[in-house]
Amino acid sequence: MSVPHEGDLVLLVSADRKRYLIRLKHGDQWFSHRGSITHDEIIGQPLGRTLYTQHGYAYLALEPSTHDLLHDMPRASQIVYGKDAAQIVLRLSLYPGRTVIEAGTGSAGLTFVLARTVMPSGHIYSYETRPDSFEIARKNLDDLGLLPYVTLYNEDITGGFHERDVDALFLDVREPWVFLDHAWAALKGSGFFGALVPTTNQVSTLLEGLEDLPFGDISVEEVLVRPYKPVPARLRPEDRMIAHSAFLVFARKIAAGDASLSWMPEKKRRAYLGKQAMAQRDAERDA
Amino acid sequence: MSVPHEGDLVLLVSADRKRYLIRLKHGDQWFSHRGSITHDEIIGQPLGRTLYTQHGYAYLALEPSTHDLLHDMPRASQIVYGKDAAQIVLRLSLYPGRTVIEAGTGSAGLTFVLARTVMPSGHIYSYETRPDSFEIARKNLDDLGLLPYVTLYNEDITGGFHERDVDALFLDVREPWVFLDHAWAALKGSGFFGALVPTTNQVSTLLEGLEDLPFGDISVEEVLVRPYKPVPARLRPEDRMIAHSAFLVFARKIAAGDASLSWMPEKKRRAYLGKQAMAQRDAERDA
Amino acid sequence: MSVPHEGDLVLLVSADRKRYLIRLKHGDQWFSHRGSITHDEIIGQPLGRTLYTQHGYAYLALEPSTHDLLHDMPRASQIVYGKDAAQIVLRLSLYPGRTVIEAGTGSAGLTFVLARTVMPSGHIYSYETRPDSFEIARKNLDDLGLLPYVTLYNEDITGGFHERDVDALFLDVREPWVFLDHAWAALKGSGFFGALVPTTNQVSTLLEGLEDLPFGDISVEEVLVRPYKPVPARLRPEDRMIAHSAFLVFARKIAAGDASLSWMPEKKRRAYLGKQAMAQRDAERDA
Amino acid sequence: MSVPHEGDLVLLVSADRKRYLIRLKHGDQWFSHRGSITHDEIIGQPLGRTLYTQHGYAYLALEPSTHDLLHDMPRASQIVYGKDAAQIVLRLSLYPGRTVIEAGTGSAGLTFVLARTVMPSGHIYSYETRPDSFEIARKNLDDLGLLPYVTLYNEDITGGFHERDVDALFLDVREPWVFLDHAWAALKGSGFFGALVPTTNQVSTLLEGLEDLPFGDISVEEVLVRPYKPVPARLRPEDRMIAHSAFLVFARKIAAGDASLSWMPEKKRRAYLGKQAMAQRDAERDA
Repeated sequence: MSVPHEGDLVLLVSADRKRYLIRLKHGDQWFSHRGSITHDEIIGQPLGRTLYTQHGYAYLALEPSTHDLLHDMPRASQIVYGKDAAQIVLRLSLYPGRTVIEAGTGSAGLTFVLARTVMPSGHIYSYETRPDSFEIARKNLDDLGLLPYVTLYNEDITGGFHERDVDALFLDVREPWVFLDHAWAALKGSGFFGALVPTTNQVSTLLEGLEDLPFGDISVEEVLVRPYKPVPARLRPEDRMIAHSAFLVFARKIAAGDASLSWMPEKKRRAYLGKQAMAQRDAERDA
Repeated sequence: MSVPHEGDLVLLVSADRKRYLIRLKHGDQWFSHRGSITHDEIIGQPLGRTLYTQHGYAYLALEPSTHDLLHDMPRASQIVYGKDAAQIVLRLSLYPGRTVIEAGTGSAGLTFVLARTVMPSGHIYSYETRPDSFEIARKNLDDLGLLPYVTLYNEDITGGFHERDVDALFLDVREPWVFLDHAWAALKGSGFFGALVPTTNQVSTLLEGLEDLPFGDISVEEVLVRPYKPVPARLRPEDRMIAHSAFLVFARKIAAGDASLSWMPEKKRRAYLGKQAMAQRDAERDA
Repeated sequence: MSVPHEGDLVLLVSADRKRYLIRLKHGDQWFSHRGSITHDEIIGQPLGRTLYTQHGYAYLALEPSTHDLLHDMPRASQIVYGKDAAQIVLRLSLYPGRTVIEAGTGSAGLTFVLARTVMPSGHIYSYETRPDSFEIARKNLDDLGLLPYVTLYNEDITGGFHERDVDALFLDVREPWVFLDHAWAALKGSGFFGALVPTTNQVSTLLEGLEDLPFGDISVEEVLVRPYKPVPARLRPEDRMIAHSAFLVFARKIAAGDASLSWMPEKKRRAYLGKQAMAQRDAERDA
Repeated sequence: MSVPHEGDLVLLVSADRKRYLIRLKHGDQWFSHRGSITHDEIIGQPLGRTLYTQHGYAYLALEPSTHDLLHDMPRASQIVYGKDAAQIVLRLSLYPGRTVIEAGTGSAGLTFVLARTVMPSGHIYSYETRPDSFEIARKNLDDLGLLPYVTLYNEDITGGFHERDVDALFLDVREPWVFLDHAWAALKGSGFFGALVPTTNQVSTLLEGLEDLPFGDISVEEVLVRPYKPVPARLRPEDRMIAHSAFLVFARKIAAGDASLSWMPEKKRRAYLGKQAMAQRDAERDA
């Protein structure tokens, strides 16, 4: 998109680094307290140019990045941060062709990043219980042209997911541990599980849930991005930063048989399997 | 890849979290100081299972993630960290269909992530001067099946790049400021520029270079990933972490005309444009 | 201590930044794999000089800092980090003349910093149950000349503390919440409470305990120190850092009467006070 | 200070964690938009009590901590952060009895912490060129009762310091590298040097200056404090934090003779000493 058309999203950046996302329409004007700019100055013209309001204030017209689109997305609730979305894509091993289940959809911030990553041959199945979020999500994805790559469900997941053998599954819900059985059932063998929770208490409860089921290679991490003032002769970090958004928890689906149990802590494994079965397995292995 | 075939890469994870990447071949064995596992136990069988050496030690067989493949890649030099690669993909706004120039290739760690992101319709053009790195990079990408999406050049970039109008360009070289003219020439209008440098001195010099040319929306940041011990009853961050890999610098190509100059700091703009041209432009704007 | 005497501690720093703490004694030699240095080269001579082993290796002889003494202290268990000790002194508002209770003593790492801070007119009362730690602590403090400012108890604190009206109290024990009643009883009104715990689960339990008692102005924080390679032309953070030592929890003792209850969360306050008393208090306040 | 008197500073903390520092005076009232509290309710009464405005709003009356006094100090310029002051005290090895030179005084934030640390037998010598800062500093230290332990100079330091053989010296000035000769001259052998600078460029220039003179054991670090929401059932870091205040640079004075030169990087050492002297020293050492 070097030359934007009517209907495209364009980013305007002011000299003091404020960012405005606008959808181009012939005859429309973008208004600010520093004056206005007509959409027709942008439509059909190369991007990367500086435009001026009638009061002489400059705005740089740019193609919006994935990061810009994510952060400026209309929302009903908190949107996932770009830093977290990027790490989720990496840890869930997503790329074109992969299939992913997500719950809840929220305003479709993460859905947008996931869909853009797995398209055109992959697919996202996203579940959301709240009707208002569902509608916002549908509109956001439609506006971004990504609905062909996403199946949106306005459904509760307490009954499970419709899909099986998906490559990855991500939970951004208040109590992800409630749905771990369903997550396990929907994933392919060795499939990628992920979840996002804001508090340490939720991390602990989720880890307990993962240890109670055949999940392995469990990890917990936080992503921090530290921005700098980009001034060559006075380089220094910004005074303040986002100190916390959420903890990311990842795991892999492992086989339900006894062998997989070795990935649980010993105590839990014994409780799950029963002393008899355990003794039998040990005997077989020693034989 | 729920069921791996001969030639596939598979990850073995030990109970103490050590990770081993192996390429499957009929009749081969994987050896460790805890005993061996035959490849034929893995080939054609579902992943996510636990395998045992003849001494009873357990290893979980998993599909390797993008993160695993990146970190275990054969290398001639330092490979980009997953955390940084993920943020680069986000900030350069990469997704299927995009075209990207990269220099230098190194061992193709970042190339791998970039190619996996833009395939099948996008393309990576990657430049590397060192013959040994070039050969390692070619082999690494071939082993991962990504060569169709990458053009590798064993060439110096002091003469510029062969491509024009690429969506994004990334420099991982010692002195990226030397090549900014060429980077600007190769990018499309509004295109995404990025670079990775380890020291603050390099950041300052690079920022000076970007300010001297028509680049805008400049930013500098670091990505930190803080891992936790995944123990539910004793949750705590790991004792030690990667404290620094590199600074990431991003910018956008803007038009070469006078309008774009408003994105430079005032002092540099005046020097670049000349007082006469500046006065003329001001006069026209006020008129 | 510009000129060290027999019995003083001196720090030797090698060119590759290794640090060795030695106690001076006439006739003794310090040995390393790079050769030896006689103590008599140091005794009675100015510090800040470079000494050479017979093989020509250089060592800088320095007065050890509080930080050096803390980190090189003989220990039976984990010693508090300097970064944490410094923040504890700040948050507990310690300075010459203050009285402080501490439990457990451990190897007296924090005791050393506390005693050095409040001496000569203040005092530290430190409790330790383990006899071996008690002996190490006594020896460490004696070696540093700080025993006059510390009362060491080889005692359990389940029965409470001997002191009353101390300015501050610090708990570095596994289950600090068990001793909050005793801590409250020993502190002066408005006195400073602090505790150090490594896991998030302990933080939560401790916060619950503090909310159940008349404590106010509660805070939780971590201190991170990020070291840099001190190379002017290639300035950059060190590759790795201490990512976690412990969480620090601070609070203030408040009066036991009903007024103080307003500092508890509403639910706990009502449970503690009883609905009748609450109603009566509300009535009085509205009157 | 369990029972405050007229003239004492007392901290009022609201239920929503706002903090107000007041100096007690018979007959005075403290006013807020939530109503007022008379000073006579506080004077002569135990601290740690909750007081109510006539509208029923609660405020906890506490003895202010070193941290509170530092952050609420009247100021003409940026005050050093508590986290940094605490680390400076640790790294400069300050305790009762030490002598310290400081420049510039600023509003005496750090001076306050230093004086409180070294009193009653130690002393701070603090230099400030700006008359307005000098006056604010004098008043701040007088209000805190610390003037007996501080000598304030309203003087430029380009001519050097009046003191010799001080234990430690700290520079919080724009161009600390200009004064390194004077700093070296004023410190005792092995004495502690420290400086605070906000930008990476300043760190590099300062490190170059330290390498050009007989300073050793050089280090650079940042201190980060990460605060948590103190809610036991929903424990999590605060959303935002102070991401940067300043870099701290520390070094030790070493002897001016040739031996000390071994602590410089080889290139600088040769330039400083001259090839002839170097050869002579090597010859002597090998002899």
